[in-house]
Amino acid sequence: MSDQKPLIVLVRPQLGENIGKAARAMLNFGLAELRLVAPRDGWPNPAAGPAAAGADVVLEKAQVFATTAEAVADCAHVYATTVRKRGVSKPVVTPEQAAREIHSQHGRSAILFGPERSGLETDDVALARTILTVPINPEFGSLNLAQAVILVAYEWAKGEALVSPTVEEILPPAPQDELDGMIAQLEAMLEPKGFFRPAIRESTTRRNLRSLLTKPGWNHLEVRTLRGVLSHLGKRDRD
Amino acid sequence: MSDQKPLIVLVRPQLGENIGKAARAMLNFGLAELRLVAPRDGWPNPAAGPAAAGADVVLEKAQVFATTAEAVADCAHVYATTVRKRGVSKPVVTPEQAAREIHSQHGRSAILFGPERSGLETDDVALARTILTVPINPEFGSLNLAQAVILVAYEWAKGEALVSPTVEEILPPAPQDELDGMIAQLEAMLEPKGFFRPAIRESTTRRNLRSLLTKPGWNHLEVRTLRGVLSHLGKRDRD
Repeated sequence: MSDQKPLIVLVRPQLGENIGKAARAMLNFGLAELRLVAPRDGWPNPAAGPAAAGADVVLEKAQVFATTAEAVADCAHVYATTVRKRGVSKPVVTPEQAAREIHSQHGRSAILFGPERSGLETDDVALARTILTVPINPEFGSLNLAQAVILVAYEWAKGEALVSPTVEEILPPAPQDELDGMIAQLEAMLEPKGFFRPAIRESTTRRNLRSLLTKPGWNHLEVRTLRGVLSHLGKRDRD
Repeated sequence: MSDQKPLIVLVRPQLGENIGKAARAMLNFGLAELRLVAPRDGWPNPAAGPAAAGADVVLEKAQVFATTAEAVADCAHVYATTVRKRGVSKPVVTPEQAAREIHSQHGRSAILFGPERSGLETDDVALARTILTVPINPEFGSLNLAQAVILVAYEWAKGEALVSPTVEEILPPAPQDELDGMIAQLEAMLEPKGFFRPAIRESTTRRNLRSLLTKPGWNHLEVRTLRGVLSHLGKRDRD
């Protein structure tokens, strides 16, 4: 199924050359959908083409988004690639495990890669349900952006031939924007109750809440039910 | 066993930069022994160091040989990396299969990589007992030298205990009674809002709600946070 191919999302990439290299890495293993979040030097970038070494089709179709949240709004499964594990309670998978998941689950998957130097911000990681980490030499970890992309794409391609389409009626997790809608509703209810005070802890509290609610991978119907729960909680008691 | 680590042999590499990148790719996955056969621009090469991004130890220890035969003279198992299968009657393996073999067999293994543009010559391939081919997009095969090296090194490292996926320090799901406490709190809040009416649907609604909240496998801390959320929702708005 074509909608099983993961999207590659480069978050705030710095060099056009690296965007080109990532495109080349992708296409080697049959991935063609690239999304860019706020590329530092704008888009298109003349340095990308030569580095893509012929993978121009990937660059031409690349979509640009202002925020990571918008880039993954239509995705059911979001993976955040980080070098080391963060102090976040999310499952951590290898490229191999991620590939296996992506092949077996329904709904679109997106794999986030951070900027060259710094990697993903905590807020980007918070959007993901799963952390993807390449197991690397603990004494020398120096994987560049295109190398991380190629390892993930390679693992995905390995499973491509083998997988027979599974026939499950299990609903995929709701798209990210439905989840965002629910989180926004809850936050709006919590705000006047003082849940986000003191202000100094507000961003952490919001992030924790988001992580918590991202974890289950609730489907469309479940999110709808939960929005019903929230609506009821906001009502006045019946007589 | 240390003698199980494969040697990486770059045959007639052209650019020092690519030798450096290959060294970096190797060390990321714990491989440190590099052999160079007749590097075009001699050795050492000043362009290699910067591209190695810190993997200098690999470059410093690199050994240079005049011929491929000499470079693999002490090796029991020689793999020739080629992009496509040649018209040679040798077994062809993927990086994954090669890694498995290298881990299970005794004696030193060497993996040959050809020059950037042309790949290995037939005479080099003839030295190998096995062909190693990365399965690649048939419509776009454009793997550079360092990328081929990194995929092979990565697969080898996957089989090594020291870089095998680390066990996560994720907390287990909270005990059932903690979850029950949270569900009871939520139900008590929903009851007076009429959420469980009509009565004929009450048991189904309760069951669905429980299923939804059981799905995430929230841990102790997460359940505690959610109970805080519920407590706040039950409060009156602050001024």
